[in-house]
Amino acid sequence: MTARRSFGSDNHAGAHEAVLRMMARVNQGDAVAYGEDRWTERACAEIQALFGARGGVFLVLTGTAANVLALSLLLRPYEGVICPESAHLNVDECGAPERILGAKLLTVTTPDGKLTPALIASRLGDRGDVHRVQPRVVAISQVTEYGTCYTLEELRALGEFCRAEGLRLYADGARLANAAARLGCSPADLAAPMDVLSFGGTKNGAVDAEAVVVMAEDLVTGAAFQRKQQTQLASKMRYVAAQFLGLLEDRLWLRNATRANLMARRLADGLRSVPGLELWQKVESNAVFASLPPAHIERLQRDGDFYVWDQAGHVVRWMTAFDTTEAEVDEFVAAVRETAQGST
Amino acid sequence: MTARRSFGSDNHAGAHEAVLRMMARVNQGDAVAYGEDRWTERACAEIQALFGARGGVFLVLTGTAANVLALSLLLRPYEGVICPESAHLNVDECGAPERILGAKLLTVTTPDGKLTPALIASRLGDRGDVHRVQPRVVAISQVTEYGTCYTLEELRALGEFCRAEGLRLYADGARLANAAARLGCSPADLAAPMDVLSFGGTKNGAVDAEAVVVMAEDLVTGAAFQRKQQTQLASKMRYVAAQFLGLLEDRLWLRNATRANLMARRLADGLRSVPGLELWQKVESNAVFASLPPAHIERLQRDGDFYVWDQAGHVVRWMTAFDTTEAEVDEFVAAVRETAQGST
Amino acid sequence: MTARRSFGSDNHAGAHEAVLRMMARVNQGDAVAYGEDRWTERACAEIQALFGARGGVFLVLTGTAANVLALSLLLRPYEGVICPESAHLNVDECGAPERILGAKLLTVTTPDGKLTPALIASRLGDRGDVHRVQPRVVAISQVTEYGTCYTLEELRALGEFCRAEGLRLYADGARLANAAARLGCSPADLAAPMDVLSFGGTKNGAVDAEAVVVMAEDLVTGAAFQRKQQTQLASKMRYVAAQFLGLLEDRLWLRNATRANLMARRLADGLRSVPGLELWQKVESNAVFASLPPAHIERLQRDGDFYVWDQAGHVVRWMTAFDTTEAEVDEFVAAVRETAQGST
Amino acid sequence: MTARRSFGSDNHAGAHEAVLRMMARVNQGDAVAYGEDRWTERACAEIQALFGARGGVFLVLTGTAANVLALSLLLRPYEGVICPESAHLNVDECGAPERILGAKLLTVTTPDGKLTPALIASRLGDRGDVHRVQPRVVAISQVTEYGTCYTLEELRALGEFCRAEGLRLYADGARLANAAARLGCSPADLAAPMDVLSFGGTKNGAVDAEAVVVMAEDLVTGAAFQRKQQTQLASKMRYVAAQFLGLLEDRLWLRNATRANLMARRLADGLRSVPGLELWQKVESNAVFASLPPAHIERLQRDGDFYVWDQAGHVVRWMTAFDTTEAEVDEFVAAVRETAQGST
Repeated sequence: MTARRSFGSDNHAGAHEAVLRMMARVNQGDAVAYGEDRWTERACAEIQALFGARGGVFLVLTGTAANVLALSLLLRPYEGVICPESAHLNVDECGAPERILGAKLLTVTTPDGKLTPALIASRLGDRGDVHRVQPRVVAISQVTEYGTCYTLEELRALGEFCRAEGLRLYADGARLANAAARLGCSPADLAAPMDVLSFGGTKNGAVDAEAVVVMAEDLVTGAAFQRKQQTQLASKMRYVAAQFLGLLEDRLWLRNATRANLMARRLADGLRSVPGLELWQKVESNAVFASLPPAHIERLQRDGDFYVWDQAGHVVRWMTAFDTTEAEVDEFVAAVRETAQGST
Repeated sequence: MTARRSFGSDNHAGAHEAVLRMMARVNQGDAVAYGEDRWTERACAEIQALFGARGGVFLVLTGTAANVLALSLLLRPYEGVICPESAHLNVDECGAPERILGAKLLTVTTPDGKLTPALIASRLGDRGDVHRVQPRVVAISQVTEYGTCYTLEELRALGEFCRAEGLRLYADGARLANAAARLGCSPADLAAPMDVLSFGGTKNGAVDAEAVVVMAEDLVTGAAFQRKQQTQLASKMRYVAAQFLGLLEDRLWLRNATRANLMARRLADGLRSVPGLELWQKVESNAVFASLPPAHIERLQRDGDFYVWDQAGHVVRWMTAFDTTEAEVDEFVAAVRETAQGST
Repeated sequence: MTARRSFGSDNHAGAHEAVLRMMARVNQGDAVAYGEDRWTERACAEIQALFGARGGVFLVLTGTAANVLALSLLLRPYEGVICPESAHLNVDECGAPERILGAKLLTVTTPDGKLTPALIASRLGDRGDVHRVQPRVVAISQVTEYGTCYTLEELRALGEFCRAEGLRLYADGARLANAAARLGCSPADLAAPMDVLSFGGTKNGAVDAEAVVVMAEDLVTGAAFQRKQQTQLASKMRYVAAQFLGLLEDRLWLRNATRANLMARRLADGLRSVPGLELWQKVESNAVFASLPPAHIERLQRDGDFYVWDQAGHVVRWMTAFDTTEAEVDEFVAAVRETAQGST
Repeated sequence: MTARRSFGSDNHAGAHEAVLRMMARVNQGDAVAYGEDRWTERACAEIQALFGARGGVFLVLTGTAANVLALSLLLRPYEGVICPESAHLNVDECGAPERILGAKLLTVTTPDGKLTPALIASRLGDRGDVHRVQPRVVAISQVTEYGTCYTLEELRALGEFCRAEGLRLYADGARLANAAARLGCSPADLAAPMDVLSFGGTKNGAVDAEAVVVMAEDLVTGAAFQRKQQTQLASKMRYVAAQFLGLLEDRLWLRNATRANLMARRLADGLRSVPGLELWQKVESNAVFASLPPAHIERLQRDGDFYVWDQAGHVVRWMTAFDTTEAEVDEFVAAVRETAQGST
């Protein structure tokens, strides 16, 4: 739709060539359906090893599906999910957790999209009260919807707090690769404090592939049935597996995320000196938030598609992707600068 | 997994080359996500025209998802779905309609997987009784799970009966192409008596692509929200659309289904004279059901993966696909014959 | 509404005087709400002792609510309930189990409303198949909707079968008192093979009071929350408890059921010689089923309100209650006889 | 439990004698079950007339049930409910709306438990966005959980705003009688701007009886089925109806609420001069909120059972009931005063 580079979202990007190539490569003859083929076995085994997951790995087709499946392994009907007000599962899934899981989200306002033990504790007062949904799962996003990234130390602190309080910890990892790239750590490091997490492929060069990674063995019971029941058991699973095989080869997933992060850094650096523009939130992955005059936002939206995050505060979000180039960033920075100057 | 041709299911087959080629072709630069790209618009418009649908077309990723989304447009919480006992949505979706829709299925035993006005009428006695789920939707499968095919006349009779009775008519069209091939009619002919139907891509050469086709305008309200809420809004929708564009080009969908049907016919003809083997159900699409001695079944399963449909009756199901060859059929027939003779 | 005695249902009867008296007796001053009052404690403790239940007792307000709450303690979302086609929870709860629990009912046709190990086994073939709801709970009704009664031996056999197969056993005891009266056994005898059961008050002289009796301690987790979430936590619980206290005093519950059973026996005996009338089902509690000519049914319905159970088979159901008198039965028998003779 | 008067909640009170008397009065012989008796017809007709409701009236057994049933008439699965953060349905129903309706609550922080058009407008930004639950119902509580009361003018303004915005307006009227008493208006005045509302009996002298009042005819479709499916169709409905008949006779409902309101006023007036105690929220019905030193709270809780509403702010809630006496209020005021002085 957009001739120019879109900074609207990392899912405006296409698929990485290596992903499509791998899909073509598995297209050979018959294979047993519903994930009992050798490519799915291999992809899941590789992801399981990468995360040090004793439970198992379940491939699904969308990020919303990954969140719903993961939570369904952790919740009983009267239990709720503590999450930031800004969490994708609270804001951007059209009520899928409420509809499919019957779950209540117990939201917390945060300055940066990140939960802390203190913020979680603020929602624990109702335990044991039969009139109240019982807090059971803490759901974070790594990286967050604001592009911020939990440090390993912060993750460990969350994990310890949750264990001590009898809570389960889940990480929505739609952009987990960006966190690994940011922190220079392995997926296993990110996963260690978690009970379940997701590992996103779609926003990192895949077509439509997400993995639900179950860390503990006892949480796996019923996961295969839940996935089927939640409409997410792809019959020709090998093509979903192939996407991950493409991303896993030579750590393409990490190289893709690293580039996206770098481009966001370049974008932020370039924008810093634009008059009237203020960066908002730390740039710790592939998102750049900025406030700028409404008139400038309007002019920029004529040429490109991006989200106005906060209408009242004139905050916009720009995202980079695995295939964003330096030239594209520079061109966009120039356009923003021109807009800013043109209007003065 | 299987070196030899699998007659286990039409989803053991791979994807058609043209489908993968089209997915590669749309892989050019950025596109707005969530289906607001030009390929999705084109694919949906073409399907809509093909079916004469005034409502709209919604792409999803699995057959279960198509059934659930379609029914969600037609049901209030206290309303139920009249369907054959053998319906995929009753038997093979791990309770997705009950879980996601809260709907009760009002099943009817049929000899051939097909509903008739009389069979439907047998479930209408409870209307108005506040203790009973109210029948509202009639769900057929075209072609059925037994491989049988409703004639156009039968479809019209169902449509008229449903309209007269204030019922909605839905067709699970996971294998709708095989019905069109069988009847030599257009999708619009098949769709005319329906309120909603699905048009399956996956079993006919796609990777993972199904379309929910809404015939009447007033049923479309909320469909886009329901799809999102049901975890089925693919962000990079253009690749789902591409699969349909591949199938629509030069009516590949029809050519694929025609070949699959022909191969099933060849298979049935070849098997007819095998001693001890009895065909079960009419062969009207790409499925062949047969009863044969348990020992033969066991021996044949050593080499190939297929379903024993009815353990007690020793009935097996063999399916052909868009890429089944005459040689593969002949080889399989020979194997069955050999097994039959070897054991006498 | 009906001036004459109604044989339409045992819930056409009023409440026993002793029940209303006890409700008035607890109406003294303030009491902590939501069941933390002394009457509720006493009623639950007495029921628990009566059943030998290690888990606990939860009072609710309707029979449908008791079934839904009980099943919610036993099911995960992808698990199903094996029950007779004729089960109240399948036929007469407007899809509450499907809507509130998302559960699929796996029904079995029975001649007499009773499950057997063999009938249960017929629904166990799908275990482990990811496309199928997993059988987990066996739900019987004691006494059944046909008025038949499981013997203690039959209950033990079901219990052993379920334990061996890893299934949970639930008894809908809306008319459990009638079974105890029939078998001359204690509630504990009836409950021993069960995991959970309900103990109905409403049909046995109460206003609106049912108890969910949880036999095993580990099944109690979350029951209090589930009851609240399912809209069934009465704030002024003492009045629900009072109903049970009234029924428990001097074993009124047993005396009530014994009388109802006796009156059904008298009714059946009286009807046996009516020309053109055939008893259907054994009379083992307070229900009498009979087939008779349609014209007779029509004439009898002018004067009284009762169910035609099977329109095609001309089968009607007549029920007696805790307060049915011998004179009422005799008068009704005379009326039926007169109708039969008047039309010959 | 409590020897002394409880100011813990209006549902700590017992039932009014007239209510129990009426329950005894309807206990005469048989009556058709499930609400098709003459007492239920009369009670519903009288309530319908009182509210000027063209739709209908549906009796249920708990306040949570009333809220869930009412919302189920107004919502499609992807639609949400705008309500105050402090709403009973958000805070005190253990997630029943999420579980049973699959609905998301879109909460708004308020100073006094009351919504305004401006507050509602703050949650309307997401309309049309497929990723967001669509706001459809505005749910207020009249009186609110803080004891505050909307004026008729405020209600009209909400009604007009909702109609203009295509929103439905629902009032949780668990304490609607207290609002009528406060405002000196009729239920019809309170109901006029609403689409659906509830009329609470339980907190106003009944045992367990709430009415869902449907103002518009077209909203009634399916209400009877929804009530049954939601486990709330009492079989011996005449006893629920009797409770309302008792309350309606000589406007007992209004006299009860008037007394409760008066006693709260007396309580507030008495407390005003207690040193260290600050009233919080306006006293406009039968609730009095006050902040006082933690040590005083602790000492007072030794003798009586009441809620600490806000632990951090040391705010407690005291409620009066239909049967609270002046002497009881005065005694309690004295006790509070003594506690306050004893500790200085």
